[in-house]
Amino acid sequence: MTWPLPQAFMQIRPAGTNDGPAIWRIIGPTIRAGETYALARDMTEEEALAYWLGDDRETFVAEDAGEIVGTYYLRANQAGGGKHVCNCGYMTSSASSGRGIARAMCLHSTEHARELGYRGMQFNFVVSSNVRAVALWQSLGFDIVGRLPKAFQHPSLGFVDALVMFRPL
Amino acid sequence: MTWPLPQAFMQIRPAGTNDGPAIWRIIGPTIRAGETYALARDMTEEEALAYWLGDDRETFVAEDAGEIVGTYYLRANQAGGGKHVCNCGYMTSSASSGRGIARAMCLHSTEHARELGYRGMQFNFVVSSNVRAVALWQSLGFDIVGRLPKAFQHPSLGFVDALVMFRPL
Repeated sequence: MTWPLPQAFMQIRPAGTNDGPAIWRIIGPTIRAGETYALARDMTEEEALAYWLGDDRETFVAEDAGEIVGTYYLRANQAGGGKHVCNCGYMTSSASSGRGIARAMCLHSTEHARELGYRGMQFNFVVSSNVRAVALWQSLGFDIVGRLPKAFQHPSLGFVDALVMFRPL
Repeated sequence: MTWPLPQAFMQIRPAGTNDGPAIWRIIGPTIRAGETYALARDMTEEEALAYWLGDDRETFVAEDAGEIVGTYYLRANQAGGGKHVCNCGYMTSSASSGRGIARAMCLHSTEHARELGYRGMQFNFVVSSNVRAVALWQSLGFDIVGRLPKAFQHPSLGFVDALVMFRPL
């Protein structure tokens, strides 16, 4: 599935086998910063790509005039009786921040998830200090359904809460 | 670490390489029933044991006069900035239900988690219809910190909520 975004020349398409280096240029700095994702900050590029492009998920990239500016994955959040709820992770290049790329990817993901038959989407661990992300997900219909007390150790803020967010599809 | 339980002759010890068949006799019926864990009901014994005894976790068994009557695992719930919170899963043999084995395993796990330096324990997906488990975890200091609407499809009850439960350590 490709998808025209509001921005001209932008599209979202499945990640291909050659997209690894471009995806790493986006997710690497976010992982190294350690402020928004509960991933080991010292993951190697190989480990990070194995995670982001894992066999248990579909991975997409947002492309702007041939340049990859964002990426997300979609997977089942649980197995068995929980497999009708999916989970996504989104990252954008810091240079492209504020241009609506995360919003476009989230809209793309909810539409794709509905096509796949999912009935809900859950974010398991939204760091509460990531206020822009929390506001964005809320504006897209996600509710805060849980609060994990001091569950994230932020590199500069110390222990902060993490949020569980959910929206029906 | 082994641990004397209130019940005479009972102890909790790390699972060994020969415990697979006994563990499967406990977790197999629970997985097949599909009422309390978000695991594929048709998992093979091999898949189930690979999950329950995975490299990312420590697995224990509760033994009563030489017979394994319960088992649990303990692992980090997240990586990176979330690695100070652990996660556990517990199962007891249906024949031994009501004898305090799950309670004893949970107490063992919180003590062991503290020894390992964890600062909190989180259950990501407690099926709300499993009222005995919810009450047990509450009696052991866990709070309901999240509610996932209709996130579990119960084989007879249909879609029910799942709960996120948490306790500081």
